[in-house]
Amino acid sequence: MKEILGGAGFGLDFDLVTGLCPRKASTKRYLSGVKSIFLHPEQAEERLKKEDPLVYEFYELEMIQDPGDLAFGTSIVHPGRVGGEYFMTKGHFHSVLATAEVYLCLRGKGMMMMESPEGDWDCQELYPGRAVYVPKRLAHRSINVGEEPLVTFFTFRAEAGHDYGTIERQGFRKLVMERGGRPEVVDNPRWKDGGGDGL
Amino acid sequence: MKEILGGAGFGLDFDLVTGLCPRKASTKRYLSGVKSIFLHPEQAEERLKKEDPLVYEFYELEMIQDPGDLAFGTSIVHPGRVGGEYFMTKGHFHSVLATAEVYLCLRGKGMMMMESPEGDWDCQELYPGRAVYVPKRLAHRSINVGEEPLVTFFTFRAEAGHDYGTIERQGFRKLVMERGGRPEVVDNPRWKDGGGDGL
Repeated sequence: MKEILGGAGFGLDFDLVTGLCPRKASTKRYLSGVKSIFLHPEQAEERLKKEDPLVYEFYELEMIQDPGDLAFGTSIVHPGRVGGEYFMTKGHFHSVLATAEVYLCLRGKGMMMMESPEGDWDCQELYPGRAVYVPKRLAHRSINVGEEPLVTFFTFRAEAGHDYGTIERQGFRKLVMERGGRPEVVDNPRWKDGGGDGL
Repeated sequence: MKEILGGAGFGLDFDLVTGLCPRKASTKRYLSGVKSIFLHPEQAEERLKKEDPLVYEFYELEMIQDPGDLAFGTSIVHPGRVGGEYFMTKGHFHSVLATAEVYLCLRGKGMMMMESPEGDWDCQELYPGRAVYVPKRLAHRSINVGEEPLVTFFTFRAEAGHDYGTIERQGFRKLVMERGGRPEVVDNPRWKDGGGDGL
């Protein structure tokens, strides 16, 4: 029901419960591939002797990346913990740093951890119906602090790109750990200023 | 749980069933205010002798409108018809024409009508879990073709702005009418090239 060939509208179906898009393969991050993001990777190693659980998955849709465009998809962080730290995404800055992102939580219970290059930080709760605005310049990471999948729908400016390297080198300044059955924001004892490479 | 004063993240709660944000007043469009968008405004006048139903409502959040930012909210188009035409939004272009928008349908059954200034058009279905991409340069309008509220969550580039005037003057080239109990896309017999003002 369309007459446009170039630049047409299009739609994609997502399951509002699982967060999955039936006709697209998600990008999957198993514990073996992301063990180093946790404060206690040795605990991840222990678990990997028995199993390699899926930590999170998301969609990298092939979008137009021209100015004026947007990119969108879903992210599913599965429930679990490693050494008292909740399953979470790697987290990233945008390559074009000054670009924002909007998340709408569809299912589950989580937290969005954010921090600026200068060390300012914020942590916002995620629960169904909660929309969280990630302002430009802030690295961000989704953390599942509940017992079911944390499903969010995200939209960002298509030119934003992803800078995973900075966080891979230096980590986030704050972590969310389970303490007495509840999530608590704590300082990251392994945080490295400039990623330890003298920058 | 934050240490940022300027540029901090923030969250807003939306009810995923009603689409409403409990702590914000929605902008409401009653039939008396939007009767002229329908093909048969005289049928709207007949109904207004008895009642003035709410056609749609949405949130105009006070967002930062700097480059790099995004704006978001929900839109609720209520079920109803006027002269065989479904309840719908006025529809608009973006003032910065070349800016896209993403809609995620959370409830109901609808259609997203889109058209370019040159007359190319597209119409995408909306149903729960369906994400519809409105490419840059396309005017767009949400139409409720079901019997319950049509609830969508939208995100657009904050600098986009809204141009309602062009559509107010000339209308959309295509309309969605109920024919034999089903929605059908038809030519708009009242469409005016350039809004009838010689442009």
